[in-house]
Amino acid sequence: MSVTAPRGFLAAGVPAGLKASGRPDVGLLLSARPAAAAGLFTRNALPAAPVAVSREHLRVPTVRAVAVNSGQANAGTGEAGLADAQAGARRTADLLGAEPADVLVCSTGVIGPRIPMDRLREGLARAFLGISPHGGPRFARAILTTDTRPKETVVRGPGFSVGGCAKGAGMIAPDLATMLAFLTTDAEVEPAVLRRAVDRAVAPRFNAISVDGCTSTNDTVLVLANGASGVHLGPDRAAALEEALAEASDDLARQILLDAEGATKVLVAHVDGARSEDEARTTGKALVDSLLVKTALFGGDPNPGRLLQAVGSAGAALDPGTLSIRLAGQQVVSEGRMTAFDERACRDALKEREVAIAVHLGAGGAAATCFGCDLSYEYVRINAEYET
Amino acid sequence: MSVTAPRGFLAAGVPAGLKASGRPDVGLLLSARPAAAAGLFTRNALPAAPVAVSREHLRVPTVRAVAVNSGQANAGTGEAGLADAQAGARRTADLLGAEPADVLVCSTGVIGPRIPMDRLREGLARAFLGISPHGGPRFARAILTTDTRPKETVVRGPGFSVGGCAKGAGMIAPDLATMLAFLTTDAEVEPAVLRRAVDRAVAPRFNAISVDGCTSTNDTVLVLANGASGVHLGPDRAAALEEALAEASDDLARQILLDAEGATKVLVAHVDGARSEDEARTTGKALVDSLLVKTALFGGDPNPGRLLQAVGSAGAALDPGTLSIRLAGQQVVSEGRMTAFDERACRDALKEREVAIAVHLGAGGAAATCFGCDLSYEYVRINAEYET
Repeated sequence: MSVTAPRGFLAAGVPAGLKASGRPDVGLLLSARPAAAAGLFTRNALPAAPVAVSREHLRVPTVRAVAVNSGQANAGTGEAGLADAQAGARRTADLLGAEPADVLVCSTGVIGPRIPMDRLREGLARAFLGISPHGGPRFARAILTTDTRPKETVVRGPGFSVGGCAKGAGMIAPDLATMLAFLTTDAEVEPAVLRRAVDRAVAPRFNAISVDGCTSTNDTVLVLANGASGVHLGPDRAAALEEALAEASDDLARQILLDAEGATKVLVAHVDGARSEDEARTTGKALVDSLLVKTALFGGDPNPGRLLQAVGSAGAALDPGTLSIRLAGQQVVSEGRMTAFDERACRDALKEREVAIAVHLGAGGAAATCFGCDLSYEYVRINAEYET
Repeated sequence: MSVTAPRGFLAAGVPAGLKASGRPDVGLLLSARPAAAAGLFTRNALPAAPVAVSREHLRVPTVRAVAVNSGQANAGTGEAGLADAQAGARRTADLLGAEPADVLVCSTGVIGPRIPMDRLREGLARAFLGISPHGGPRFARAILTTDTRPKETVVRGPGFSVGGCAKGAGMIAPDLATMLAFLTTDAEVEPAVLRRAVDRAVAPRFNAISVDGCTSTNDTVLVLANGASGVHLGPDRAAALEEALAEASDDLARQILLDAEGATKVLVAHVDGARSEDEARTTGKALVDSLLVKTALFGGDPNPGRLLQAVGSAGAALDPGTLSIRLAGQQVVSEGRMTAFDERACRDALKEREVAIAVHLGAGGAAATCFGCDLSYEYVRINAEYET
């Protein structure tokens, strides 16, 4: 049931002709009552127009709706693109009888071209007519670009629930590496409590995944809490909210990786013994983003030298005398030295859909987990053979 | 004539059975007289044993010989590997009647296994017997791993000359991303002058190239100046030395890129208008290391959205209002916005062996140039299908 699983959320998804394929490309998510909202946005220095507009609208962290289009990213479009994003929010607000600031907007698709605004306006009107408490799956389909399947989740908390959907990370479309994720909950929370829960439970999950190390111009995660369950979660009960949000985020993040372009396997890099969480994450990212590690994973080749190279080049403090690395359960580096290991068992373990690397840096007490995927011929094909 | 082009240098390269292929794998470079020396080494936190030994021996920056083996990287080998590297230097010193500290050592090959030291010792002895002022090309062959051809250069300065050879950057061998480069000159310079010339003219050239963004455990550049030409270059004449070293370094760096695994094209990213040289280089590296940019280059697809994404995510200060990007001579981004361009002309230009991207960040006066290559099916094949 996706984003409409929690009470008081309605959604729709319709084809409006923004995509050449004729697939659904306009999604509308409404909350029956004003919802507390929090967002996470790309740190790319050239953010898309809808990112700027949604950031601005979140200055009052209560919203009514989210309008999404796929087909055009509305990035690299200058002042005209900004006006388009604002017009999309205004159109949605008009349909609802709300203010533009009550509406958040997202776009995903090709960088450069402007959105055909007449089609978007007409699509938003039709989406509004088709809005339904069962519309989550249609919304989840309308936000996709080259994803091969929708990504949805539902998590039950004590007295409330969390719903969500996402579109893929990675070089999804010709010009694009956009991840969009939407989480809804019928828990009742103050915006400040929601904000903190998002920073603690949602941000680390989505920041831990990487398909190819690129940060899109459009990446956005939006979380809406409308209180329709009547269950109030004050600061003292925030842990329950964080737990449910974390579980939903993990679920969506894994679905994104398994649907990444050309990916055949998920790589989980757990780093501990780091001087700081930042350094643990840097080392984990170095592993999941390393072309050598990604191609070895694709080939199913146990290759400890590549792990050593990636860990050593990450820039984190480490103690060569106590450094250890485990690959798919096998100890391959011990006290900084390569060790003999059961290659056949390791090769078998590398055939699984999920492969784990565990690194102990021996420099401190901090840890982090990062997620990535392998690099296949298919990735090169998709990204090299596409003709703009 | 490679490293033996300048007067007073002798070299040899022999097969010693370190490589399964039976190809030459032990190289010896001698200076007939003590030579001033300077080195550049990997910043990987887990450097190979020979890196540690050569660094130590350069504390007195005068050397007599460089001994290189290919086949094993002598990395991830712990204390035993360190003893092996020291033994290699000592063996070479004994053959010459010199001290171990007069000898620098380099290794390249598979990470993990130890060097078969009996074979190395025997190989060094045979190399010493075959040493010759015409041995440069044999030395250049002995240092290769999966490179498809040797990389050599000769540059004439006023009264002196510079010779050099290198082995490839990029994931050269199964476990390895080693670049080795050796430059010789018969100019007479103080070690301090040579050190400064290397930092100014050699380091920026080799640091500007990237095949896949990985920093090897073994990367080493060694520069020897033996004064055999009788031409003394004091600090006042250092410019002539820098110019010759820069030209030789550029030549070797380009040869390395064109022989990188699977590469079909060289990418040159020139970034100006940056707040600092560091930020210019960060942006250039982000472009040449971007999987999206590399695959688009391989496919010959003009894809300005990917350039915008890479520039925006590099983390350098930029002014979106004045940002401009040129791809293969065509203006594709102007004042931060995508602009119409001649796609056919651009597509034709992308078929060349060398493709240029020029970025103006609009944030300051600093500039830098970075070099990279494309990402092909062949790269994935080489690195995924290899079986350890």
